[in-house]
Amino acid sequence: MPGIASTPEPPYYAVIFSSRRSPGDAGYRQMAERMVELAAAQPGFLGMESAREPDGFGITVSYWASIEAIEHWKANAEHLVAQERGQRAWYEDYVVRVAKVERAYGKPE
Amino acid sequence: MPGIASTPEPPYYAVIFSSRRSPGDAGYRQMAERMVELAAAQPGFLGMESAREPDGFGITVSYWASIEAIEHWKANAEHLVAQERGQRAWYEDYVVRVAKVERAYGKPE
Repeated sequence: MPGIASTPEPPYYAVIFSSRRSPGDAGYRQMAERMVELAAAQPGFLGMESAREPDGFGITVSYWASIEAIEHWKANAEHLVAQERGQRAWYEDYVVRVAKVERAYGKPE
Repeated sequence: MPGIASTPEPPYYAVIFSSRRSPGDAGYRQMAERMVELAAAQPGFLGMESAREPDGFGITVSYWASIEAIEHWKANAEHLVAQERGQRAWYEDYVVRVAKVERAYGKPE
């Protein structure tokens, strides 16, 4: 996760994944790394940003060209396995929000 | 920052603020706390989530009832001062993305 994602001009889509990790690793780190790699290889993937507090609360935002690209990624077989393990083992709680990015601006030069 | 925000059914808006902090505090923590307090008192504020990595990369997402509520908050006088200090002193880099949340779901019970 190299920090701020380079994304094109809006419009595009964001999936905001807000979560609280369960204690312990239980295979989480390895799967998380694999999911980053796999997401980046999907059609319509534009970038990803992630940050987590020491207390376990974290936010991951992935950026996508279209709703169809998001649905395609959500239905990926290997990702489905990860989602199931996420529900069962890795996350005490989470919320997924799908949003259309309408405007974006950076720090002035 | 108490973790996952409780938000109403979509549609609503999200402001995704992705940033890399400059080293040192320089009044940052005090102002950040004040901005959380002030944002929460604005009309149309729905919630806020924030996480930062030890390396300085962080994501703050605030949720709003409308674009008008976001514009009103952006133009708040005390917030304008904070934005200026943010550009000048606290953030090496940042991107602000304004997005319309179209769908949201949580962890199944």
